[in-house]
Amino acid sequence: MVKIAIDAMGGDFGPKPIVEGCIQALKQKLFIPILVGKKSEILPLLPKRYRDKISIVEADDIVSMDDAATDAIKRKESSIYKAVELVKNGEAQGVVSAGHSGATMTLATLRLGRLKGVLRPALVALMPTKNSRKSIILDVGANVDSKSEHLAQFAVMGGCYAERMFRISPTIGLLANGEEKSKGNEVTKAAFKLLDGYKGFKGNVEGSDIFNGSCDVIVCDGFVGNLVLKASEGVASTISGLIKEYIRKSPIAITGALLMRKVFKLLKKQMDYEEIGGAPLIGIQGCVIVSHGKSTPKAIKNAIFQAINYVDNHVNEQIVDRLEVLKNKEI
Amino acid sequence: MVKIAIDAMGGDFGPKPIVEGCIQALKQKLFIPILVGKKSEILPLLPKRYRDKISIVEADDIVSMDDAATDAIKRKESSIYKAVELVKNGEAQGVVSAGHSGATMTLATLRLGRLKGVLRPALVALMPTKNSRKSIILDVGANVDSKSEHLAQFAVMGGCYAERMFRISPTIGLLANGEEKSKGNEVTKAAFKLLDGYKGFKGNVEGSDIFNGSCDVIVCDGFVGNLVLKASEGVASTISGLIKEYIRKSPIAITGALLMRKVFKLLKKQMDYEEIGGAPLIGIQGCVIVSHGKSTPKAIKNAIFQAINYVDNHVNEQIVDRLEVLKNKEI
Repeated sequence: MVKIAIDAMGGDFGPKPIVEGCIQALKQKLFIPILVGKKSEILPLLPKRYRDKISIVEADDIVSMDDAATDAIKRKESSIYKAVELVKNGEAQGVVSAGHSGATMTLATLRLGRLKGVLRPALVALMPTKNSRKSIILDVGANVDSKSEHLAQFAVMGGCYAERMFRISPTIGLLANGEEKSKGNEVTKAAFKLLDGYKGFKGNVEGSDIFNGSCDVIVCDGFVGNLVLKASEGVASTISGLIKEYIRKSPIAITGALLMRKVFKLLKKQMDYEEIGGAPLIGIQGCVIVSHGKSTPKAIKNAIFQAINYVDNHVNEQIVDRLEVLKNKEI
Repeated sequence: MVKIAIDAMGGDFGPKPIVEGCIQALKQKLFIPILVGKKSEILPLLPKRYRDKISIVEADDIVSMDDAATDAIKRKESSIYKAVELVKNGEAQGVVSAGHSGATMTLATLRLGRLKGVLRPALVALMPTKNSRKSIILDVGANVDSKSEHLAQFAVMGGCYAERMFRISPTIGLLANGEEKSKGNEVTKAAFKLLDGYKGFKGNVEGSDIFNGSCDVIVCDGFVGNLVLKASEGVASTISGLIKEYIRKSPIAITGALLMRKVFKLLKKQMDYEEIGGAPLIGIQGCVIVSHGKSTPKAIKNAIFQAINYVDNHVNEQIVDRLEVLKNKEI
């Protein structure tokens, strides 16, 4: 059974939502959870009947959001450090953390190490699309200033993720300022050449393709990925804010809004990051899911499911194989 | 009175929406419009009472969306070439075109030339925000692979635009993957140093700041700007598509939707690019407004208003002055 180490302390709201999410996950799936953090705080949150199903690894220290990511490597008593060590020592196969994402990525990269052939790990975001088919975008923030070789590897790693996790034969696109081959910046144009002919690679895709489900794997630099994600969240929040404001002003619209409540609920579900739970850091030896600091129990539950599926589907093994293919292509 | 040359032919729907937009603009504002294109097609669209208020400059050729942008410079009989020449020869002060945007930008840059001190012109997009205060983002596609000096100049030019057009003392932010000074890629970090201390410069801003109205002028590379805009449009269209789909499925929601119709209408207005009309190309000698190929008469009308205001507010004169300030800062 898959063992998942869960950083119980790093989230914005302390261990409560994390422990609750872990219990919710246990109700639906078989796995072995290891909560890492302050026993004195975790234990009171655990109902008696779960105490023999969930083990706790004591960790005194917490890397907070104000700490520098690079400091994490020295904080050997911290919950995230100890959670990552459990994977390093083979006592767990995956880590879920809602703590400092920079610290989590740094520790994962330095302590677990990269997969054979991987130049740089990348952070993968799962995107909601118009149709029910999910698409992913990477890198969304593990790196800035990526080179063309990095982008080409992100394409391969993302392809493996989509193939294994969604059980599809994925299409892969490079995010650019136009679909034509002539579009892109220097880095994406060079990456295009490296990927030309690679299975599933369909060339350049545009910003609007991120949400229309026309491409399964969308590849970009982490700087760009971060901006695109944040801007998208900004648009969604602006639209919902405007709807709320207008409804507040008009009594007729209030009646309408009540009748449309179910619509909004479904809409929220479709667009909801809670459903996804977290972003996998791909390209490292092991499995690390980076969750939002404000994660609810439901988000944590889904992050744990992500970790279990990632391990069960042998994504990493396929990445190593496929990078070999890309490498041979270059020669 | 300001003279505006309007490319009557380049749009996706031929001269009809362009001529109509021109007439709508004339009803609201005093200016001298010059329609450039095929007289035989334009004249039948002009009601008799407007024929002495609108002059037509004959142009036989049309640069189509399939043509290469660089070809435009040889197409001396095309409507966009002739429209730009009117500005070059002082017969008009501004150009509005819904034609091939690459061709328009190429001709504007090569035939009109850059303003003194400008390294590269930039395309400015006006963004809808939560509050009614407008913000702008540049560059959204005139360049890819910008250097730090280019970004710093975009900041200055955008600042001048916002100051003159919105009559505010604008805040200026660099788009980056985090607000901290340490965030950004190599190019934005170097641009940060160039802009440090410049009036209104508030440092890095994030993708979510584009729509929350917290910053008046947002600066980025044209590759990034294009992606952010397209992704945002993608989100908005996905949300509206999901709402429509759910409403279609539920009879109760249909009643709600009818009651909420006014809300959606207001919402559409707030988010509507028609209201803006077009994107000014900033940094050239003259004024060029790049409109969407699918522009409606209303969009053309607003693009013409943009051009008139741009000229009336002496944006260009201020850009030349302020670039001098930035230059002296560097020394």
